[in-house]
Amino acid sequence: MDRTPPDTPLDLFADAAALTAQLVDTASPSGEEKPLADAIETALRALPHLTVDRYGNNIVARTALGRPERVILAGHIDTVPIADNVPSRLDADGVLWGCGTCDMKSGVAVQLRIAAIVTEPLRDLTFVFYDNEEVAAHLNGLGRLAEAHPDWLAGDFAVLLEPSDGQVEGGCQGTLRVLLRTRGERAHSARSWMGANAIHAAAPLLDRLAAYEPRRPVVDGLEYREGLNAVRIEAGVAGNVIPDVCTVTVNYRYAPDRSGDEALAHVREVFADCPVEEFTVDDHSGAARPGLSHPAAAAFVAAVGGTPQPKYGWTDVSRFSSLGVPAVNYGPGNPHLAHKRDEHVDTAKILATEERLRAWLTS
Amino acid sequence: MDRTPPDTPLDLFADAAALTAQLVDTASPSGEEKPLADAIETALRALPHLTVDRYGNNIVARTALGRPERVILAGHIDTVPIADNVPSRLDADGVLWGCGTCDMKSGVAVQLRIAAIVTEPLRDLTFVFYDNEEVAAHLNGLGRLAEAHPDWLAGDFAVLLEPSDGQVEGGCQGTLRVLLRTRGERAHSARSWMGANAIHAAAPLLDRLAAYEPRRPVVDGLEYREGLNAVRIEAGVAGNVIPDVCTVTVNYRYAPDRSGDEALAHVREVFADCPVEEFTVDDHSGAARPGLSHPAAAAFVAAVGGTPQPKYGWTDVSRFSSLGVPAVNYGPGNPHLAHKRDEHVDTAKILATEERLRAWLTS
Repeated sequence: MDRTPPDTPLDLFADAAALTAQLVDTASPSGEEKPLADAIETALRALPHLTVDRYGNNIVARTALGRPERVILAGHIDTVPIADNVPSRLDADGVLWGCGTCDMKSGVAVQLRIAAIVTEPLRDLTFVFYDNEEVAAHLNGLGRLAEAHPDWLAGDFAVLLEPSDGQVEGGCQGTLRVLLRTRGERAHSARSWMGANAIHAAAPLLDRLAAYEPRRPVVDGLEYREGLNAVRIEAGVAGNVIPDVCTVTVNYRYAPDRSGDEALAHVREVFADCPVEEFTVDDHSGAARPGLSHPAAAAFVAAVGGTPQPKYGWTDVSRFSSLGVPAVNYGPGNPHLAHKRDEHVDTAKILATEERLRAWLTS
Repeated sequence: MDRTPPDTPLDLFADAAALTAQLVDTASPSGEEKPLADAIETALRALPHLTVDRYGNNIVARTALGRPERVILAGHIDTVPIADNVPSRLDADGVLWGCGTCDMKSGVAVQLRIAAIVTEPLRDLTFVFYDNEEVAAHLNGLGRLAEAHPDWLAGDFAVLLEPSDGQVEGGCQGTLRVLLRTRGERAHSARSWMGANAIHAAAPLLDRLAAYEPRRPVVDGLEYREGLNAVRIEAGVAGNVIPDVCTVTVNYRYAPDRSGDEALAHVREVFADCPVEEFTVDDHSGAARPGLSHPAAAAFVAAVGGTPQPKYGWTDVSRFSSLGVPAVNYGPGNPHLAHKRDEHVDTAKILATEERLRAWLTS
């Protein structure tokens, strides 16, 4: 693998491992994606079989071969902040170390390689490169593309090249965060009977949570695993005061057989007989069905092999799902290494991912 | 009532209401007691029947008549911070308004008046004026006197002239604050089964607290009223993380039939079968028995009249109790007005308190 200085144009005809290193060395923490977006745009515009569009630092490239189906390969080009782990380093075992190697510049390298080498795909292709995935949801480039240019994201099936350790991970679970507030009445703790304790009022809420039996529903052949958890609890005025407010923040992770409304109704029902005085939705991102029964998805799974797994965490496949495009996660990185200072990726997995996707798209 | 400028020497032969106004007008928020301590020392040193000692801004004046018993009249000379309520203002109904009128310069005025006019008491007298009662316990002047000069505080019975609305309030309840910590294991909330939720682990603690039936024991004829309350609860790492620590701060207010060790043992017992991984005493101040069976105390109650009441809150009578001196609260202010911006005192109650104490000490 040859090393190239960061200001060298991206070489899409180098192998995917070398290209990953080049992408890592063009640092792009969230909010600072422009140099990398520029390099990607320049490289894609050099490919005559693609039409390239840009919106901010989001790049979309498409074939227009008139195929009956269109599949999307998508990935974010930003990383978490650099942690003394750029430039990248390739060790003697073929492992590439550095910020974004796993999450998810190895996936982006595979996208770029497919864009360059698969000029006659059996299905029309759309490549999406977007920014700000690692930060607040309202900044997310895929979400902003979906609002501004939903037509650019039209398709029958999408593969998000997020790290999944070379396994197909279908759909994703939804996440709902709710603030449950109990109320009491302040009093001096030396005369506690003059007041009412909001923390004590929260006891039945914690009982419900502790006794809760999460579902494990099978959706499109994948078994999901839900969870309902307090992620925060807060109350307290002073060391000698009976507190009048207690807030329990609950996070419900739900399987894609439930809609957002059904998830909300379920949480309300769990705490229906508890003394909750305020019920406030703090955050809500819907689930996505795996969509593996779609012919394009089935063909994909058959081509890349392995047994599809459910995705427990929320990912951007949900954004495709809300556009009506079934989507899966499939990328070379190990998700447990994402965001770590010692983030790394096995270059052999990058090459294998590229090869499997190429095979699926050409035969 | 004549008004005097603040830099005029204290006139202990003015009536107790006028003297209260003069004390209020010599502002003395905690930490700034020196001018008032100086004025009190000067006024007391002018009285030939008293021996005067000083330690910091704490003044102790004593008779030495060789009487078989000695009683202590004590009060703090500091106030909470001024809140645009100095100088004092006397209204047409004989109500004196201003910072410290209630808590507790009216009581201090009564102490000073008794010191000046009761030159031949039936019991030897000790007058204690101390600083820093309204702030952190380790600064408290009475506590520092008890450590440095316990002999100055020797006596058979003590009256603390804290606001009690002209009623005898016996003893005080203890206060114990404990941090109870549950532990779990962090995990991403999308894979909550990989961790253990410390907030859910706190459910049985809150159940115990919600179900707790506080005692109402009778001690020396007074019915106390205990309480065991969570005053704070804290847990939370991030909106998508199963928290690994939850801390519940519990405040036990206990009657004076329990020692500090017994109180601690009781709290441990309440939570004995709960998953408490750490049990940390955060703060502990013992209770004080009312000591109303002591002859000097009984004579005091008979002289001042009314039915003694239990004191629920913790007060400095506990410091006397720990020195072996039974003590009660008895002062002219209404305790509900303490620390308020519109703090005030009925001057008729100041005069009545002085008269009752004078009668007790001279007949």
